[in-house]
Amino acid sequence: MSKPQNVKGMRDHLPQAMLLRQQIITILTQVFEQHGFEPLSTPVVEYAETIEGKLGDEEKLIYRFEDHGGRKLALRYDQTVPLARVVAQYAGQISFPWRRYAIGPSYRGERPARGRYREFWQADADLVGSPSPLADAEIIAILTESLTALGFSQFTTLLNHRQILGGIARISGLAEAEAGNIYRAIDKLDKIGADGVREELLQSNISPEAAERLLALVLLEGDSDTILQELTTQLQGDEKAQKGLRNLREIILGLEAMGVSQAHYQVSPRLARGLSYYTGVVFEAITAHWPQGSLLGGGRYDELIGMFAKQPVPTVGLAFGIDRLHDVMAELEMNPALHTTSQVFITLFSSELVSESLLLAADLRREGIKVVTSLESGNLGKQFKEADRKGIRFVLVLGPDEVAKGEVVVKDLMNGTQQSVKRENIVAAVS
Amino acid sequence: MSKPQNVKGMRDHLPQAMLLRQQIITILTQVFEQHGFEPLSTPVVEYAETIEGKLGDEEKLIYRFEDHGGRKLALRYDQTVPLARVVAQYAGQISFPWRRYAIGPSYRGERPARGRYREFWQADADLVGSPSPLADAEIIAILTESLTALGFSQFTTLLNHRQILGGIARISGLAEAEAGNIYRAIDKLDKIGADGVREELLQSNISPEAAERLLALVLLEGDSDTILQELTTQLQGDEKAQKGLRNLREIILGLEAMGVSQAHYQVSPRLARGLSYYTGVVFEAITAHWPQGSLLGGGRYDELIGMFAKQPVPTVGLAFGIDRLHDVMAELEMNPALHTTSQVFITLFSSELVSESLLLAADLRREGIKVVTSLESGNLGKQFKEADRKGIRFVLVLGPDEVAKGEVVVKDLMNGTQQSVKRENIVAAVS
Repeated sequence: MSKPQNVKGMRDHLPQAMLLRQQIITILTQVFEQHGFEPLSTPVVEYAETIEGKLGDEEKLIYRFEDHGGRKLALRYDQTVPLARVVAQYAGQISFPWRRYAIGPSYRGERPARGRYREFWQADADLVGSPSPLADAEIIAILTESLTALGFSQFTTLLNHRQILGGIARISGLAEAEAGNIYRAIDKLDKIGADGVREELLQSNISPEAAERLLALVLLEGDSDTILQELTTQLQGDEKAQKGLRNLREIILGLEAMGVSQAHYQVSPRLARGLSYYTGVVFEAITAHWPQGSLLGGGRYDELIGMFAKQPVPTVGLAFGIDRLHDVMAELEMNPALHTTSQVFITLFSSELVSESLLLAADLRREGIKVVTSLESGNLGKQFKEADRKGIRFVLVLGPDEVAKGEVVVKDLMNGTQQSVKRENIVAAVS
Repeated sequence: MSKPQNVKGMRDHLPQAMLLRQQIITILTQVFEQHGFEPLSTPVVEYAETIEGKLGDEEKLIYRFEDHGGRKLALRYDQTVPLARVVAQYAGQISFPWRRYAIGPSYRGERPARGRYREFWQADADLVGSPSPLADAEIIAILTESLTALGFSQFTTLLNHRQILGGIARISGLAEAEAGNIYRAIDKLDKIGADGVREELLQSNISPEAAERLLALVLLEGDSDTILQELTTQLQGDEKAQKGLRNLREIILGLEAMGVSQAHYQVSPRLARGLSYYTGVVFEAITAHWPQGSLLGGGRYDELIGMFAKQPVPTVGLAFGIDRLHDVMAELEMNPALHTTSQVFITLFSSELVSESLLLAADLRREGIKVVTSLESGNLGKQFKEADRKGIRFVLVLGPDEVAKGEVVVKDLMNGTQQSVKRENIVAAVS
């Protein structure tokens, strides 16, 4: 056959990348479970019909195919639609509010580009079946705790609300259905500046006065209280917007009650997340260390999850992109230590002494030390080279003298030092 | 759309199943990493060409499809062929011996049946690039340590060797290419008995004398030493078989050197694993607690992994079936405690005291306790019902009296008991 290769946009993750990816997944799992979130796993393959009709403009990105039986199938587009399916299928087995997380790959049929893959991993946490602002606050608290646990110190979660965005759109005088143009224009504020946004708004047939009013609102600066105050005044008379503002205040009260530092969130009326299914709070976390884009986002979407079950199932959730997180953390060198799984290599001095070394390895493993052993005895030079090539720091030698004295030679390949250590002290010497 | 449903043979794993599945994966990961195995992740989608031509009779089970660009693709059939692809593609980045593990789903295009799914999860550990019998012994030691860590106490790993099986086939007088019939007959020994196997052998044009000799060999009973001794005598003059016997003895010496208990392995000349790509030791673990089949298996396959790289890459490995392990452990009730992620539910006494409860939750989480909080304040009865429905054991109440006294009421829903506990003692009370 021809040279083996990956399907384009589908990546291998070799050990060094995997170690960081697994660390990210382990930390997120811990934070999710500390909040009582339960794991759910759904198949990679779904009926195309299950996924279709929910994604608006993104519909064309679904990874569709037919199986040999002619069934119209698709690879999972995200973890959200399968959650809606599960809520409908297992109605009697799930009690609300339900905290569920899901970690795994999703797929896009689009042409791959830098940072956009056909197979990508997400970690989703959703609080299903509660309209309480404390549910929104808990999801945002989880975002904050997760980023902190991952090692990010300076980050901000921008908060906005669909009903505030709705109010901003309504003052433009456009019909609800056309508001999409406005959100898309606002979304480009950081890229094209206020003048660029103004131009796009005018092209969308918004009057110059409305465009100015709208721009003034999305450009509001100040602390969260100031902005909320100003929005309340400016959107006076718009009952839906006022309701959104009250809801956002309640969510912020929840964050305060949970002890989430104010340094980590900020109301931002210009945050206009693309996905049309959000109905309440929307948020995105950004960090100055990585100005290229947001780290992750989420929001409340009260209509999607109940879609199959045909009853309202108010839900708020977030989705971490594991690939994005990995790339950012690797670029910021946030985990330089993760080079190998093991820091200890035990040599085999001679065929007679194989068991001495292998039993030492078993002992150290029982103490929780990750140990690689040589597979060939004799020729210590070759064994040292193997350890060095693997990036393993400590190399242990058990020759006849050491066995007689109950000692082990520990060579530190990082410092070039070497010492004889009593067997009972080895764990300390290599930790 | 019609009622939402799963694609047949592709299962959802709801939280209770997932908790056990994740525990299995965590334990296997720990054992693998304690031996210095490194994680590898490859895409679910491969070019069909990569997978085809390696599986013999099983070729028809590949899950094939075409994408929209007309590319002939397939869902990963196992973790072994992708490993071979990776070894060829990243030749400069991988140093041998390479210990790699991979955990994830693989796919079959076959019609699903009880215990056979279209999507199933495997945990593979392979030691790549070493012909040493210590490599074989290490993989078998990992099998033993893994099953022990999972909670199995009585299990046996049956050991055999392709060259011993070859010798047994050769005494039948059949050509190498026809030996498959013999292995398939031997494989049915437990099902159809010696008489049944004899009949099948005779139908394969084996002479009655050869069939008797062959049966006598595969029916050998006794400890490993006795069986090896008898095989050495019976297969005298067959140099390949003698080489296989020496190799198996060396592997057993390795197991002894590693301190693997003899109670956990047993030479069995009747073990004839189906996969044609094995070249050396083959093994399967069985337990009396689950007589329906083997728990897992593996072996040495020195030709497959070098196939794309076009150079020999001797490899030995094993594969745990996560679905099988889950089903067995659930049936044997080996982990009855895994009902929820959390054992602590904190109520919200009143809207004024929300923060008292939520800050307590944050404190307990910092201590490593998994905590669910109510999303609505007031109506304690409703909150208790929620905790009960979720199967959570401890319910905590922080009313004005408790706040004043620095205490928390801890109700144990399992015992029906209730006590007031000082805040500093809560961790102990709910652990």
